[in-house]
Parts: sequence; C-alpha cells; structure tokens
Amino acid sequence: MIHRLDESAAGVYVIAVTPFTDSGQIDEASIDRAVEFYLEKGVSGMTILGMMGESHKLSMEESRAVMTRYLRRVDGRVPVVVGVSNPGTDPLVSFAGEAMAAGAAGVMVAPVSTLKIDEQIFAYFSGVLDRLGDTPVVLQDYPLVTGVNIAVETLVRLFERYSSIKMLKHEDWPGHTKLSRLRAAPGRQVSILVGNGGLYLPQELARGANGAMTGFAFPEMLVDVCAAFQKGDAEQAEDIFDTYLPLLRHEAQPGIGIALRKETLRRRGAIASAHVRHPGPKLSAEDLHELDRLIERQERRLLGEPALAAAS
Amino acid sequence: MIHRLDESAAGVYVIAVTPFTDSGQIDEASIDRAVEFYLEKGVSGMTILGMMGESHKLSMEESRAVMTRYLRRVDGRVPVVVGVSNPGTDPLVSFAGEAMAAGAAGVMVAPVSTLKIDEQIFAYFSGVLDRLGDTPVVLQDYPLVTGVNIAVETLVRLFERYSSIKMLKHEDWPGHTKLSRLRAAPGRQVSILVGNGGLYLPQELARGANGAMTGFAFPEMLVDVCAAFQKGDAEQAEDIFDTYLPLLRHEAQPGIGIALRKETLRRRGAIASAHVRHPGPKLSAEDLHELDRLIERQERRLLGEPALAAAS
Amino acid sequence: MIHRLDESAAGVYVIAVTPFTDSGQIDEASIDRAVEFYLEKGVSGMTILGMMGESHKLSMEESRAVMTRYLRRVDGRVPVVVGVSNPGTDPLVSFAGEAMAAGAAGVMVAPVSTLKIDEQIFAYFSGVLDRLGDTPVVLQDYPLVTGVNIAVETLVRLFERYSSIKMLKHEDWPGHTKLSRLRAAPGRQVSILVGNGGLYLPQELARGANGAMTGFAFPEMLVDVCAAFQKGDAEQAEDIFDTYLPLLRHEAQPGIGIALRKETLRRRGAIASAHVRHPGPKLSAEDLHELDRLIERQERRLLGEPALAAAS
Amino acid sequence: MIHRLDESAAGVYVIAVTPFTDSGQIDEASIDRAVEFYLEKGVSGMTILGMMGESHKLSMEESRAVMTRYLRRVDGRVPVVVGVSNPGTDPLVSFAGEAMAAGAAGVMVAPVSTLKIDEQIFAYFSGVLDRLGDTPVVLQDYPLVTGVNIAVETLVRLFERYSSIKMLKHEDWPGHTKLSRLRAAPGRQVSILVGNGGLYLPQELARGANGAMTGFAFPEMLVDVCAAFQKGDAEQAEDIFDTYLPLLRHEAQPGIGIALRKETLRRRGAIASAHVRHPGPKLSAEDLHELDRLIERQERRLLGEPALAAAS
Repeated sequence: MIHRLDESAAGVYVIAVTPFTDSGQIDEASIDRAVEFYLEKGVSGMTILGMMGESHKLSMEESRAVMTRYLRRVDGRVPVVVGVSNPGTDPLVSFAGEAMAAGAAGVMVAPVSTLKIDEQIFAYFSGVLDRLGDTPVVLQDYPLVTGVNIAVETLVRLFERYSSIKMLKHEDWPGHTKLSRLRAAPGRQVSILVGNGGLYLPQELARGANGAMTGFAFPEMLVDVCAAFQKGDAEQAEDIFDTYLPLLRHEAQPGIGIALRKETLRRRGAIASAHVRHPGPKLSAEDLHELDRLIERQERRLLGEPALAAAS
Repeated sequence: MIHRLDESAAGVYVIAVTPFTDSGQIDEASIDRAVEFYLEKGVSGMTILGMMGESHKLSMEESRAVMTRYLRRVDGRVPVVVGVSNPGTDPLVSFAGEAMAAGAAGVMVAPVSTLKIDEQIFAYFSGVLDRLGDTPVVLQDYPLVTGVNIAVETLVRLFERYSSIKMLKHEDWPGHTKLSRLRAAPGRQVSILVGNGGLYLPQELARGANGAMTGFAFPEMLVDVCAAFQKGDAEQAEDIFDTYLPLLRHEAQPGIGIALRKETLRRRGAIASAHVRHPGPKLSAEDLHELDRLIERQERRLLGEPALAAAS
Repeated sequence: MIHRLDESAAGVYVIAVTPFTDSGQIDEASIDRAVEFYLEKGVSGMTILGMMGESHKLSMEESRAVMTRYLRRVDGRVPVVVGVSNPGTDPLVSFAGEAMAAGAAGVMVAPVSTLKIDEQIFAYFSGVLDRLGDTPVVLQDYPLVTGVNIAVETLVRLFERYSSIKMLKHEDWPGHTKLSRLRAAPGRQVSILVGNGGLYLPQELARGANGAMTGFAFPEMLVDVCAAFQKGDAEQAEDIFDTYLPLLRHEAQPGIGIALRKETLRRRGAIASAHVRHPGPKLSAEDLHELDRLIERQERRLLGEPALAAAS
Repeated sequence: MIHRLDESAAGVYVIAVTPFTDSGQIDEASIDRAVEFYLEKGVSGMTILGMMGESHKLSMEESRAVMTRYLRRVDGRVPVVVGVSNPGTDPLVSFAGEAMAAGAAGVMVAPVSTLKIDEQIFAYFSGVLDRLGDTPVVLQDYPLVTGVNIAVETLVRLFERYSSIKMLKHEDWPGHTKLSRLRAAPGRQVSILVGNGGLYLPQELARGANGAMTGFAFPEMLVDVCAAFQKGDAEQAEDIFDTYLPLLRHEAQPGIGIALRKETLRRRGAIASAHVRHPGPKLSAEDLHELDRLIERQERRLLGEPALAAAS
C-alpha cells in the first residue's frame, strides 16, 4: 500500500536509527530488524534519515541505500517520512523527489541555520515548498538544534499558504504555550507530533498534539500513552509515561543521547551494533553501568513494584 | 554563627527566590517567610541573588536590600552564598566585599558570556579571583545560559591555583562524564553541588556530587534524596527522586520555569506573590491548570498509590 | 539649554568613552577633556554609557558619577543621550528617570539578549516604553552584540505605536537593504544614525541615514563626511571617508577595538589613560607599533600624498 | 604537473566561485572562464568548493562535476585545494580520496559546528586526520561562521602531531594577535594564508602570514599586495591595498557578499551569470547602483586621481 501523509496523521512516528556495523558500515540486516522491532511495538509510522538518524554523516549514496532498504522492508505496512533537510535547496528538492518515487509518504524539512527573522523563515520555506509542489511535508520546528525560532504566526501563515504542509514536528522548548496557540489559531490545522525526546508528551497531548515523533528506545511506551489518551484516559496515559520518565529523561540528554539510545536498542535486539559514527559520543564503562541500573529500575517498576519504597 | 564556605560543603543549598509584591516591589516580609520555609524543609544552605533569583533585574540598592534581609533572617542558621556575577570585575569585587561584610559564607561567580576558549576563561577567573583574595568562591559552570564551555582541565587548573574556590556549581549538560572526570582528577577536590534544576541528581550523586544547588519548589525532595544517598541507600534515594520527577521536569523548563517555581512556592505559602519582574514569563489559565494537575498527581503518588495504575 | 531629542536629530552623535585612570578609577578630569575634544571636532551630540562606554563594567554609583560629570561639562552645548540598557526593566526605568532629571536629551535602549522572535521583541519594547512614558528614546539595533534580530516590520510597528522613539541606532550587518526598507516604509519616520563603527557611512547616508552614532577616534572625519553629504557633495564625502578607512577598519575590530580607540584618543590628548577595565583587551607592543604605522600612513594621506604610490 | 601542498605555499590561493546558469544549473563553460580569469590575474593557487563556493548547496554528484571540471581546466598550472568539510567524517574522507585521485594538491577542512572546547576540537581533527593519512590538509579556522573557537595552543598541538597539516586558513576575528602568537610558537610552522575577505591583509602579512586565501573579485590586488610585500616594500603593498579597500570592505559583508562578488565577477567577464543558489541573497536595483558607484570610484583611483579631492 502506498501511503501519502495527510493532516489526519496521529500516533507514534518513530524516529528510526541508522544502524551501522561495529566498523561503521551501513548495516542493512539491522535495518530489517529495526523495522520489525518498531512495527512490533505498534508504531503508526516511521521517520528515517532524521537528525537522530545520523543522516548528516551519510554520503548521498548511503542515504539512498538506507532509504531504499527501510522502504522495502516496511513495504507499505506504515507510512514512512524521509528527512531531506539540506543547506541547499537544489539537493533537497532532488532527494525529496527520489524519496517520493521510492514510496515515502512525505518528507521532513527543518530550516537552515542562517535564518534569523520571521520574514526570512517564511521566504525560505516558500522557496523550498514552491519547488516541492504537492509533496507532503513535515515542517520540523527544533530551535535548540537549528538555532531558528519560528513564531506561531509564521507557522500559521505557512500552513495557510502551503496545503502541502501536512504535519508539524513540534520541539520548541519551552513549547506548551506555542502548542496551545497553534491549536487555537483560526484556519487550516495540521497534524502535530511532538519531539523533544517526548519529555512532555502527556502535557502536549492535553494541549492538542496528535502524537509523538521521537525515537525513545521503548517506543511501546509512546504508543501506549497515545492510545490511552486517545481512548480518553489521560490519567492512565500519564501513569504509563511517568513509569518510563527516569529513563526517558536520561536518553533525552543532548549529545550523548544518540549513543544511549542505540545501546538500549542493541540490548533489546533491535540492532546488532550500537556504533555511532564520527563525530559522535562514545559510552564509558560508567555510562554503561548507569544505563544498566536505570533499565533495571524501570523493569522493576513495570512489574508493579511501588515506585516509592520509601513510603512503605 | 558566622559560616565560611569550605570544600566540605554538602547537601542542599537552595537557590532562593527574590519575592516581589504583585506590583513588583521587593517583598521583605516574604523573604522572611521564604527563609523559614526553606529551613523547615531541611536545606543545608541558601544561595541568594542567583540567576533564578532574578538578580539581574534588581538595582544595586535592591540587591543590597535583598541580601541584607536574607542574611538577617537566616541569622547564621545555615551558610548563605551570594551571587555576585557581573559583566564588570570592579562592581563584582565591590559587591562581593559587601556580601562578606554582611555575613555571607561565600560568593558565586559565573563567567561573562564573551569568553570563548579555555585560556580566556582561565584569564578571566584569574583576574577576578586575584582581586577577591581569600573570599570563598563558588564557580558556576552553566553553559546553557552563559554560553561558556569550561574544560575539565581548566577547572582543575583553577582549583589548583586558587584555593579560594571551595565549590563548583555543576550544570553542564550533558554533564555526567564531566563530573566523573572531575572526581577522578588528581589534586585538590572541591565541593560539587549540581544545578540544572536537579534533573539528574541521583546519577550525579553516584558519580561523586556532594549535593544540589537548585531551587525546586519542593526542596524537601532534594534534601531527602541527598540524605538517603548519604546513608548508603541509593535505591531509596532514587525512588524518592522518581516520585517527584514529573513535576521536577516540568519546573525545569527554561524561560517559563521561574514562573512555575514562584507559583508553586506561593501555593505552598513560602511567598505571598508569584510576581516575576519584566522581562519575564507569565502563566496562562492553561498553564495554571496544568500545574494543578501535576501537583495533584504528585500528592497522590506521595500517598503511596502505585504509579502504574495501568499495571493493575 | 535643555535639549530633548526629536526626529530631526542628525549629524554625529559620538559614542563617548568612559575614561579611567591607569589604576582603573573613573577619571573625571578626562571626562572634561573628552567633552572639549569631541566638541572641538564638531560633533552634534554625544552618547554616554553605551556599550563602548564600558557602562556594563561600572557600578550604579559610578554610572551616576560619569553621567553627572558628562552632563555638567557639556552644559547644554549639545544634546546628550544616555545608554540605559539593562536586563531588568525596573532598574532601566529608574536610571532613565535619573538621566532625564539630570539633563539628558534622551536615553538609548537595546533589547535584552534572551529575545528570539518578533512578537517577543515587540512585547519587550512595549513593556519598557510604556513605562518610560514620553522620555525620548533611541532604539539600538545591534544584532552582532545583542544576538537579537529585529525585522523592519517590527521596527515600523514600534515607531508607529510609540512616538517616544525618536531615533534608531542602526547597526545590523549587513544592513544597507534594511535601511532602504525603513526609509521606504509608510508612516512616521525617525532619525537614523548608523553605528557599526561607521564602516559603511557613505553608503548608508546615500540610503537615507541622517548621520552616525559611533566613537571612531577621529570624529572630525565623521563630521566632515556628514557635512559634505549634507551640502550635496556625496563624492567629496566619500573621498574624505576613504582616506580614513584603513584606520577606521582597524579600530572597528570587535574585542580589541575599544583598546585601540582609547589608545588613539590618549595620543590625541582627549583622555589621560587608555586603561580598559577588566574583563577587556590589552594592547601588546606589536599592536601599538601597528597602530603607529596606521596613524602615520593616515597623516601622510591627509597631507595630500597620492594614495597609490604604486601607480606613479 | 601534479602539485602536492606543502608548508612553503604562499601568495594568493583564490577562493573560486561555483558558477551557475541563470536557471541555477552548474555552468561548466563558466568554470573554464573563471579558471582563465584567475590565472590571468596571477593567483598562485585555487581553492574550490569552499563556503563561498556554495559547496553546501551542491549535491554530491554536482560537487564531483565541479571538482572535475576545475581540475581539468587548471590542468596542473597551479595547485588546487578542494574544500571537503562535512558534518560526517565518513563522507568527508571518502570525498577527500576522490579529490586527491582527481589531482587536488590538498583538501581543506573546517571543524563541525558542535565542537565547544579545545579537547573536543583536538579530538575531532584527530579523528579526521588519522583517517586522511598523508593527504595534505588546510585547516580552516573561521569562528564567525563555524562558531568554533580554536586556541593557539590547540593549533600548535595539531601542527606538531599531524605533519599532514600543511596550511592554516586564518580567519579568526579579531585575529592579529593570534597570528603573531602562532608565528612565535616553537615547533613546526605551516603556511598561513588569511581569509576574512582579506580585510586585514597588510597587517597580517606584517605579522607573518604567507598570503591570502580569499575570493575578492579583484584578485590582482591581492596578488600585487603579496608581491610588493614579498619584495620588501610594505608601504607600497599597503598603498595598493588601500586603493581597493572601499570595495573590499563592501564585498566582505556577510550574507550579501557572495552576491556582490559574483555580480562583480560577471561584469569582469569571469563568469556568465551572477546567480546564487537558494537559499541565498539577491541584489536589488539599489544594491546594483551602489556597486556601480563603488567600482567607478575605484577605477578613478586606479587612474591615479588623488584620493582626497577635499584636500586640494
């Protein structure tokens, strides 16, 4: 089945890792394993070649190879969004074309880091979106990494002008009020999935988000939280979330986060190696031990052990 | 009793707020209430006129008034550190002198934001510390806000050269490895209290921190975590911590965090008004409702209700 | 005579230095000398306690002393603008009140560095300007230092809403197009003086600037350029400018620029010491020798020696 | 002739543009014209695919095409350096291999923008240089654009450890003192060519630079300045430089600079179109008129007309 992203997209679009072998080559077999892992956990979609997919460390040929393998393995079971952000609009448009031809449901675009004010941001996206035509687009709003701050008003103007924008990946920080204002804005609404490591997911669902687009190594939590919220049980959603929060917060650290995530996915059997390409973080023995303890504590919590032993 | 900060400092040095009236004047009566609130919760020390104490929004005269009132009310019951960071070294040194004369246990200094490389950072602190003489100093390492990144090696060189540095306020992010490396470094060790909203306190205690210097509106949690860790029960420490983590993470948001903290302290009776001076954040009705829910959920957890209702 | 800044302000408002003794104290006698030096060179106004006036390295008491001395010595001969930028609006407003009471013609305000998007910038200035009432204000737009980028549209909205804004200090970079757009905007126009070390003064005059607000140690050049342009001789204006450009470009370097400027002013007899307060740059023997050569070359050019010896 | 960059490199290595057609395609015929233009002006070398070569806006295939065409046309007449900076080390190393195989004299590498402190910078370059083996490398030090500040000590350590570093492209700002300190450092010296638009070339030559690596649209000036300095006539060198300084300063503006440069090169017949790829600046009618005037004034100066008409 060929998916095309639209404004009704919801649930968890997992940010998929790019697996490498221990020696740093693309590990295509692990792409297959990762796909099955993510699907088994119930994700509604996948986003490949995003920032946490180390797309900026791949050659164009490698990007193509990863994209092709992911799309083939997923084989239409869920929609796949392809990250195509690029400092140049020409290669961006060209790669977006390849992605759509290969079966992507849409592409994700973050602003280039030289943009400073709203009119520059609007002009940038106009320049890109005019050329992308009717390709479904996810606009990624992630100031902590891009350095670009987009006003609510500018987002709303872009949504109005470009019906090809189907989704916002919302990861401004702090961003709760921005989310509320986006939902309160008149005019066309798009799907909003939250990033930022998922650190505020329950609050953001309550404010109108449709789900999450992040890569936490326990995606089943994100899935369960969204499902519980969807069926109207916000308290249960938040209970589930809180159980995983200590580990979630740990993995959400900038810099080292990708290494923690890949190591956790490796332990869970999703990929064969936790290798992160250079330049990138490496985990020390102490980091690994710390991760052990946090995972172990989480497992105990999942068995229903009271969180506050101190209270008894 | 006159305290003088030394390397043995440990526990919780709460970052104390500067309370204003609803119309924005210094609220001296609320300083008294805040002091009693903090002491009642068991803090080991206080830090006033820090970044979250809105010190940059006070006139020099107001800073003096806040300092005087805090020191008088504390009256030697715990040591008080005074934030004296300043873009100019002359006013910094002059205000540090006033603080020590008024009974402060030490002063806290963050680097000016124009510093870029290690040798500039070392030279900056040399220029300041040479003039501060034997005044006990807390060095604040908070790159997210100052924009200044200090290498472990530079910190170690500063600790070696300046015995007046008694404490490091550690809030690099990610910072776990930095903390481990500081503890593994040869030579003189200083007290290390962690900031960063306390978001990683259990992990940081395990890596050698001596406590926390942050202003979470439930300082009793920080106190209990440090105490449990101190008596050897790291698991219990972390259980206590995890119970408060959802709210802690909420308050730790940049920008809006100070408004959430002051509102929570107001509800707890520590201060009369949650007023934050301009320029600063304001809470919407939705923000207040969200805070209600998070506090209510925390209260339920403290009553021992299983965290994961979903598991039953 | 009491001046009050209005939209007709033009010419050179020199950014006046804050002179220190070699040991770093305020040098009040040099304030008097600097005033006479600047007036003798023909400036139309002065701006004191700006960024290059090292205002951020003064205590509040010292700021008052510098302001008082400058205003007394100028004694109404030209209008004096006082820099009052401050991270807190309360001390900003309070000091602005003091400045106006002491005889300032207006105050200069730069945005605080935490502002990111246009609506925050507008809200910030609204908060400040509402409280400043009818105090004449110079809005300083200097992104390289403040990190805040203000859109043309936002400036225009501010000018429309706040008639108290009488002048824009324009130092965006690149900024020529911004200047043209500001001049082409409908609605109320304000005086625009350019900063940025004066590096683009002829081009900016041609695009509608009314003069310069910068502190080049040869202010007579700025004065002559503006005068020649004013009487309609743009070519002559640019010839004068080009003669000084090698030195102007040298002094306009960030960081070290203030030390070069003060040393040049010292050589010219405007101040007694080139001392820059900590933290700040110091000139090496090589720096001084380089400055010697550049000044000597300029003096030769002023004697009419052809610039391109090579061409003969 | 096959060149291999070594420490003796000197003179002008022009930063070559990437010419596009008006519709934005690579213009291979203009590459040929640009090569002949640059060689005719006397450059000692060329650097292609640098930041001002818009390399970040090319696809990998286009980068290859530009590189191949440039290398073929130059055909060994001068050494050609290829910019290979890349957020990922794998594609960087791979493209560097292609460049050397195609006949490049060396490759240029700037640090990735996530590096913060010296040890990270050293580790980054170690990771890259270890894999580049004996490929001759130009290390680009351009903090204004990369956001990475490299200490003199770190550069010296890198030069000592990696004999493959043959050249430093020096464009720190301010950077005069850094240059002097690099030249005064013990140990192996490398070639130092200055960038920063060439804005300080005479001063930098006096402090030990070996030439310039920048792309000013009048490269003959850079060539003449270096030649005059080389034969011992620093005054003449600076006279030549000063004649071009008004235009040099204009072109050196960030952002719009590349558009001004390409337009000037187009007028001089070096390339067929001034097209800059999206995202990038566009010149208005007013910008073009301003450029006209600056070029016209320069032509008059070159004819020996006294610079200061005002003096006569």
